[in-house]
Amino acid sequence: MLSGLPKVLHEVGAQPLLAHALGAGAALDPERVVVVTGHGAARVEAAVGAIAPGAVTVRQDRQLGTGHAVAQARPALADFGGDAVVLYGDTPFIAPQTLRRMAEARAAGNDVVVLGFEAREPGRYGRLITDGDRLDRIVEFKDATETERAVRLCNSGVVMARAATLFDLVAAVGNDNAAGEYYLTDIVQIANARGLRCGAVTCDEAETLGINTRAELAGAEAVFQARRRAEVMAAGVTLVAPDTVFLAADTVFGRDVVVEPNVVFGPGVRVAEGARIRAFSHLEGAQVGAGAVAGPYARLRPGTRLGAGARIGNFVETKNAALGDGVKVNHLSYVGDAEIGAGTNIGAGTITCNYDGVLKHRTVVGTEAFIGSNTMLVAPVSVGDRAMTASGSVITADVPAEALALARARQQNKPGLAVKLRARLLAIKAGLARKAE
Amino acid sequence: MLSGLPKVLHEVGAQPLLAHALGAGAALDPERVVVVTGHGAARVEAAVGAIAPGAVTVRQDRQLGTGHAVAQARPALADFGGDAVVLYGDTPFIAPQTLRRMAEARAAGNDVVVLGFEAREPGRYGRLITDGDRLDRIVEFKDATETERAVRLCNSGVVMARAATLFDLVAAVGNDNAAGEYYLTDIVQIANARGLRCGAVTCDEAETLGINTRAELAGAEAVFQARRRAEVMAAGVTLVAPDTVFLAADTVFGRDVVVEPNVVFGPGVRVAEGARIRAFSHLEGAQVGAGAVAGPYARLRPGTRLGAGARIGNFVETKNAALGDGVKVNHLSYVGDAEIGAGTNIGAGTITCNYDGVLKHRTVVGTEAFIGSNTMLVAPVSVGDRAMTASGSVITADVPAEALALARARQQNKPGLAVKLRARLLAIKAGLARKAE
Amino acid sequence: MLSGLPKVLHEVGAQPLLAHALGAGAALDPERVVVVTGHGAARVEAAVGAIAPGAVTVRQDRQLGTGHAVAQARPALADFGGDAVVLYGDTPFIAPQTLRRMAEARAAGNDVVVLGFEAREPGRYGRLITDGDRLDRIVEFKDATETERAVRLCNSGVVMARAATLFDLVAAVGNDNAAGEYYLTDIVQIANARGLRCGAVTCDEAETLGINTRAELAGAEAVFQARRRAEVMAAGVTLVAPDTVFLAADTVFGRDVVVEPNVVFGPGVRVAEGARIRAFSHLEGAQVGAGAVAGPYARLRPGTRLGAGARIGNFVETKNAALGDGVKVNHLSYVGDAEIGAGTNIGAGTITCNYDGVLKHRTVVGTEAFIGSNTMLVAPVSVGDRAMTASGSVITADVPAEALALARARQQNKPGLAVKLRARLLAIKAGLARKAE
Repeated sequence: MLSGLPKVLHEVGAQPLLAHALGAGAALDPERVVVVTGHGAARVEAAVGAIAPGAVTVRQDRQLGTGHAVAQARPALADFGGDAVVLYGDTPFIAPQTLRRMAEARAAGNDVVVLGFEAREPGRYGRLITDGDRLDRIVEFKDATETERAVRLCNSGVVMARAATLFDLVAAVGNDNAAGEYYLTDIVQIANARGLRCGAVTCDEAETLGINTRAELAGAEAVFQARRRAEVMAAGVTLVAPDTVFLAADTVFGRDVVVEPNVVFGPGVRVAEGARIRAFSHLEGAQVGAGAVAGPYARLRPGTRLGAGARIGNFVETKNAALGDGVKVNHLSYVGDAEIGAGTNIGAGTITCNYDGVLKHRTVVGTEAFIGSNTMLVAPVSVGDRAMTASGSVITADVPAEALALARARQQNKPGLAVKLRARLLAIKAGLARKAE
Repeated sequence: MLSGLPKVLHEVGAQPLLAHALGAGAALDPERVVVVTGHGAARVEAAVGAIAPGAVTVRQDRQLGTGHAVAQARPALADFGGDAVVLYGDTPFIAPQTLRRMAEARAAGNDVVVLGFEAREPGRYGRLITDGDRLDRIVEFKDATETERAVRLCNSGVVMARAATLFDLVAAVGNDNAAGEYYLTDIVQIANARGLRCGAVTCDEAETLGINTRAELAGAEAVFQARRRAEVMAAGVTLVAPDTVFLAADTVFGRDVVVEPNVVFGPGVRVAEGARIRAFSHLEGAQVGAGAVAGPYARLRPGTRLGAGARIGNFVETKNAALGDGVKVNHLSYVGDAEIGAGTNIGAGTITCNYDGVLKHRTVVGTEAFIGSNTMLVAPVSVGDRAMTASGSVITADVPAEALALARARQQNKPGLAVKLRARLLAIKAGLARKAE
Repeated sequence: MLSGLPKVLHEVGAQPLLAHALGAGAALDPERVVVVTGHGAARVEAAVGAIAPGAVTVRQDRQLGTGHAVAQARPALADFGGDAVVLYGDTPFIAPQTLRRMAEARAAGNDVVVLGFEAREPGRYGRLITDGDRLDRIVEFKDATETERAVRLCNSGVVMARAATLFDLVAAVGNDNAAGEYYLTDIVQIANARGLRCGAVTCDEAETLGINTRAELAGAEAVFQARRRAEVMAAGVTLVAPDTVFLAADTVFGRDVVVEPNVVFGPGVRVAEGARIRAFSHLEGAQVGAGAVAGPYARLRPGTRLGAGARIGNFVETKNAALGDGVKVNHLSYVGDAEIGAGTNIGAGTITCNYDGVLKHRTVVGTEAFIGSNTMLVAPVSVGDRAMTASGSVITADVPAEALALARARQQNKPGLAVKLRARLLAIKAGLARKAE
């Protein structure tokens, strides 16, 4: 990846690859989660803490192969009598139902279950060599005979077994190979030699997609997005141009939501029935009420809650702000750390001045109020129900309900001065030009 | 569609599917248009009224099949001696020339003309069974023999015949089938049995695309956009990245217009020769003059008219505004309900305060004027030719030509106060932190 | 192209096609560059002057074919003893290494080297007819036998030879053909007849892509972008959605830069390690420091230099502005012709009023300053280190270090006036409605 960031922390769908792998495993409702870290261990451990607080991390200090990595988890699972599944932090798309099918194969009498896939181009993948419904062995491509190479069932690396069995088998793996590494795949032959039964479960090749380059990362993002877009369309959402809409794993839409071209949804967005998200909008951590309209060019940041029928127009940013039903903020405004009552109209160019350089403060505006264009609401401040502010006012004190607040200098017109001023500026410009010669 | 909206009102190219179908039929210059409504009839009727005010609507109260639907139109056409063509509201892409070819086939002696298409994957479509240049019958897939299933000429459902003939044939259709429905397709066999001549006309499969899911709706939008993009490029317009430009059915461009990536054209836009629409712009109902430049991030709303060589910059919204030749509005402004004279420069952050919470008012600015940054033009208000406003002024009274208007408080510098203020704020913050412990 | 612009001045990757062709040739480090102009010669000459100041231009006044065009260059190269390569202004993708391979073929004893390509669909291209490793002749499709038409090696038109040889051969070309034109391709047969040796070098078909329509221009842009995206990803940059990122030929990225969807890079952008360019941003001629974040909706214009860790937020435009380390401009601001010291925070809605209608002036803000929301900095003006401005202030005079500047009218609250005002406006509206009836 040519990166300072550990590979498993690169993101797909605004989540680290690791979170996808942990999410797949979580579908089995595991009693324990052990993450083996290596490269960039400290950062990965911090990420694990944030993603899956109950997970245990163990370090693989030297990179001696997949078998060796699995062995590091043994102490953390020494007292654990259940099954273990080995997943990979850089393989984000293993489906929960695939893991459930592996669990079923375990329940059906297989001591070790390996996940394989029918490869379109098997190339240099390891091959799963089966004998009826038993898995006989996994052969690396370079060790495979012509007959074995003709097999298209390839190894994903995902393995399920009783934890104790898994660790016993791993302990028997040797490193007598060119790389001097301990390969997890060797456990199949060892298991068969010990009279255990091994089986294979097959999944779609797309699930086993691993990430090793930025191009593959982009490819994984494309797969993720295509899947999410299809899901939301199937649930009754119109995406006018699906390829231009970017969704998060947790984006939730009500029926008959329309999303115009070029919209980005970060994590934590809910959009209620019949709302419309217009072109060039960007939403993160926001709730959009039924029938509301956001954009074009709306930026809804975390903590935004739009009421039913609310209207956020162009070049408007909201953050940590609750806007009641029917509120309108149509143009060029910043509404942050604020509460705006139902039916209030916020004029163009309004700014809630929520930050004084040190602390953040709140702005509270009542219902049916009218905030004139370019009003500065210097928080902490409140404006009462049905109150108004005159455009261009800096509001530093609370405005009572039904009052009009204004803070404005008197206009003076100076006859002819514009022409004189321009003449003077042109003379200066001419002088500068002469000097430059 | 999992939708509360009647299917034919879902949009492609910013128009309801129904409008596309009506548009196709309009190419034949019909004397009468009858729309048979069913699901969501009231909303569809309202839409028909808006799209094709001369059209008649009739309701099919029970959904008893396509033949039954056609029969509902009989009373509305009882006195009509001409030809009728049956189109479908969810099939937006039938080309006008295809309908003209159907009319030619009628003129050539066919009493009933059916539109077919060579299907890439005929699947479960009904098949057109021909005998020389006569159409013998339409067989449903489930009733078809192996030989008939091998036929790739499939039924689009579009039919043309003399109206009286059509209704007579439809009246003879029975509903003796599994669904208990009256199928329009049955009229071919009935017609042949009566000694009438039936013929088939073939069109491209893409024309017959019907919409039944959101994914198909998105697919139709993609087809529509690809066609429009190709058209405008062929007419001498540069689309730097065609896949990122969204056009309406009626977007009109002069020669040598350049459209940068990520631009959305809503309905009613005309862009004159040599203009440039920069990235991330959004235009609806706007006219852009020759050589003008809009964007990046320009939002031109309905009623915008930009003069030749005008310049609308970033984060600028215009609405119902006539901007003369060479006018510049370069940054962060809202210009609505306004008239701006040629050569005038509107400074950054300018807002026409056109709404007082109840009424909208107009702003008129003369030629060669200079509006300082962050000027609030509180409408109704006018600024004369060659006048200036000082930045930060709220202009509530008219400014005569050549005058300078200012409305500004005197600046005061309070030595050392910034540092004291910050120290005080930091002390408060520290106090809050202590309390929080 | 249906264009008023000479074809070679249409752009791919924000550069004229001509610049791409000149760039390909420049890889050979040529002693002289001669550009033969024809259609729109004056504009092309001006462009050549800007792109390759050392190049000579000569005019082909009548369009008598490629051989005739080459002949126009003879006087400009009369005293030149080296090799010449003939390239085409509308063929932007010939790779430098391809030209180097042609030079090697020259060095290996070929007097004339022609560039060919294996065409996927040879169609009506001219064919290169070889005899072992010698090139025997180039036959036009219409003159080719069936056997010759079966050849897939097609003519690109690119030719290399000693300049004197080239011009001698071209002088011998006749125009005895249907079009009455002098074809450069004829030189191969003439050369062979004179006992010279001709050879062919083969390149990928994509390199020989010529541009004759807007659709082909868009196709060339797509090829260019795909190549650049792959390059930057291979160098350790994350493009979340590569197809939505538009790069220039000279965009430079440090490692671990992340570019979100929908970003446009114009010419002259450098982004340092670990910076993040968020969605919907537009950069031209800008430098972004390590770990800085721009966007969403950031517009960085030429002359912008962002320090390490700086933060440019949404709806913010910068131009000719140096922003120090850690500077924040988070919302709805315009910062132009300015210098902002490290650690300073620029509040929402701030504008540097740099233009008085005639001249541009500079704004200088010190370190750790705090510019309140909606401050107008009327340049020329300076704000000292650790100073503050109150929100809504128009700053026309310098602010000393550590001072607080304010320019603000006193707020007045008028009890009940909002309600009275609205009642009056509603009465007016009702009156207007009555009149309208």
